[in-house]
Amino acid sequence: MAHLSPPDINALKAGLLAGNRASLSQAITLCESSLRLHQELSLNMLEELLPHGGKSIRIGVSGIPGAGKSTFIEALGMELIEKHQKKVAVLAIDPTSEQSGGSILGDKTRMDDLSRNHNAFIRPTATSTQLGGVGQYTQAAIILCEAAGFDVVIVETVGVGQSEISVNKMVDVFLLLQIVGAGDDLQGMKRGILECVDLLVINKADGELKQKAQLEAANLKNALHLFPQKHSGWSRQVKTCSSIEKKGITDIWNAIEEHQQYLKSSGKFEVQRKQQTDAWFVDLQNNCLFDFIHTQPSVQALLIKTRAEISSTNSNPLGLVREMKIALKELFFRK
Amino acid sequence: MAHLSPPDINALKAGLLAGNRASLSQAITLCESSLRLHQELSLNMLEELLPHGGKSIRIGVSGIPGAGKSTFIEALGMELIEKHQKKVAVLAIDPTSEQSGGSILGDKTRMDDLSRNHNAFIRPTATSTQLGGVGQYTQAAIILCEAAGFDVVIVETVGVGQSEISVNKMVDVFLLLQIVGAGDDLQGMKRGILECVDLLVINKADGELKQKAQLEAANLKNALHLFPQKHSGWSRQVKTCSSIEKKGITDIWNAIEEHQQYLKSSGKFEVQRKQQTDAWFVDLQNNCLFDFIHTQPSVQALLIKTRAEISSTNSNPLGLVREMKIALKELFFRK
Repeated sequence: MAHLSPPDINALKAGLLAGNRASLSQAITLCESSLRLHQELSLNMLEELLPHGGKSIRIGVSGIPGAGKSTFIEALGMELIEKHQKKVAVLAIDPTSEQSGGSILGDKTRMDDLSRNHNAFIRPTATSTQLGGVGQYTQAAIILCEAAGFDVVIVETVGVGQSEISVNKMVDVFLLLQIVGAGDDLQGMKRGILECVDLLVINKADGELKQKAQLEAANLKNALHLFPQKHSGWSRQVKTCSSIEKKGITDIWNAIEEHQQYLKSSGKFEVQRKQQTDAWFVDLQNNCLFDFIHTQPSVQALLIKTRAEISSTNSNPLGLVREMKIALKELFFRK
Repeated sequence: MAHLSPPDINALKAGLLAGNRASLSQAITLCESSLRLHQELSLNMLEELLPHGGKSIRIGVSGIPGAGKSTFIEALGMELIEKHQKKVAVLAIDPTSEQSGGSILGDKTRMDDLSRNHNAFIRPTATSTQLGGVGQYTQAAIILCEAAGFDVVIVETVGVGQSEISVNKMVDVFLLLQIVGAGDDLQGMKRGILECVDLLVINKADGELKQKAQLEAANLKNALHLFPQKHSGWSRQVKTCSSIEKKGITDIWNAIEEHQQYLKSSGKFEVQRKQQTDAWFVDLQNNCLFDFIHTQPSVQALLIKTRAEISSTNSNPLGLVREMKIALKELFFRK
């Protein structure tokens, strides 16, 4: 990838538009690259592919570890492929992959059936290490999947925090998976997450837990009434399912389609998509600003100098930053 | 707070150094303010208070919702106050508070005993909305708590993701709470989180679950051997406890002290603290750079112009960002 040149980009684009999954994968890698040349190339590529994006249903799936997200996504994905002739892309956001250098060992094989299917594409996406967080890369990856012809893009988040709030800003519908017995009240679930939810799914409703799940669903439905409505005006729904027994999956897909219909008939779909684009734009702008100042040779020299100071002495970081502010003004306004 | 002037800052500092909790709270609010004047004031205040910081044991406590973090922190905190005459500060990071405008309803009352105790201080801390993430504010809040005389600072994170990785970079010891029955293998726990862990605590080991907890602890101990050692060379420990019955808490505190001893006697404590300062410095630097460019009047005008364009037309965000890059160069290098 290191020596990718503009002609390669054309081949990459053509492959991607033809639905080639290897090209799609390579294009996402290019967008995630921190190399300056790659960034230039990928932004240009994205810009050209932008008109081919936007046509999928974008679904956010979240839930705490152990909620069964992978099994659920596999069940939903296979149903969509087999019964509805859809092409399904799964973007798994792993905010913890920084330390282990991007390795999410074992995760690739979690969705066995889906990962072997030609109409599916599974890909962990990186979170930005410094700025823009989840937003920038995932938004780009969604558009690339859409340009490659995927009808449904599922964005999976592993955490219960910042990532979900970000993902909510880039999907059409947001599903939160709960497990039976996690409590029939809303304790433990943060208010901020609940505000994102369009569809609350109680997973693992199988065997002896089936009845308990239904009871919990009823209680959760009541509890959800206490929350302010979604901005879209949609009334949050609660569903139960068993991903392993593949029960309740159709029902959930129907609710997703109903939600999509609701957004479209009320004119809110376009509004929401526009908001997504605007939020992405702010991310891109902020990155552009930071990148501009950060890569100025004079600023680089200043950073190297102050980082050497903090390493070599016991000088306080706040004092150094104060000095840096003064130095920045001098750099840009001396003339 | 809107018209806080430098003399007020002196009173605030004096109050904080005298251990006044209201002053401490106000100082943290000042640091979290997005107002430019407040930022200037708070950075200067922090710089002056910096020599008074650094003296606490900094403990990170993480775990998925439902793991019983609040009950555990209350049990540990009360034990430290009552048996060890410590002053305990709890900084609760809530990455989801953005959308609901900072409200974390009900959370304040979760730690009943602790919140009523004069030797405790409980405070939710904001995560940055744009840059620097968790790091900048929490690091500042830790130092303020230390300057106010708190011997133990507990940083609680609600998520299982980005926040934990960030918190790991600013604490001495990192505890992960698990609940019994969450599985005796390490499935569902992300590798990146496990790499942070110094002490794995199986909570809710009470009643009929006690024996199961001990079995799981033994299995987890074995599983942890498969992970690379912590950078510090410390061998991760696994403990069980019942926060409700207040059992096992002393044992956990002993392990924390043992870990602290290990770091200090091996000379790694200073190294780790230095790394924390360096990481904070990079956060501060990046924020300083972004803030510098972002607040230039010419850049502000450019941002307003391009944001109006994206709102009024269907122009693509990537094209607008490309144009912005060119405009930035002209702004700063025209002369």
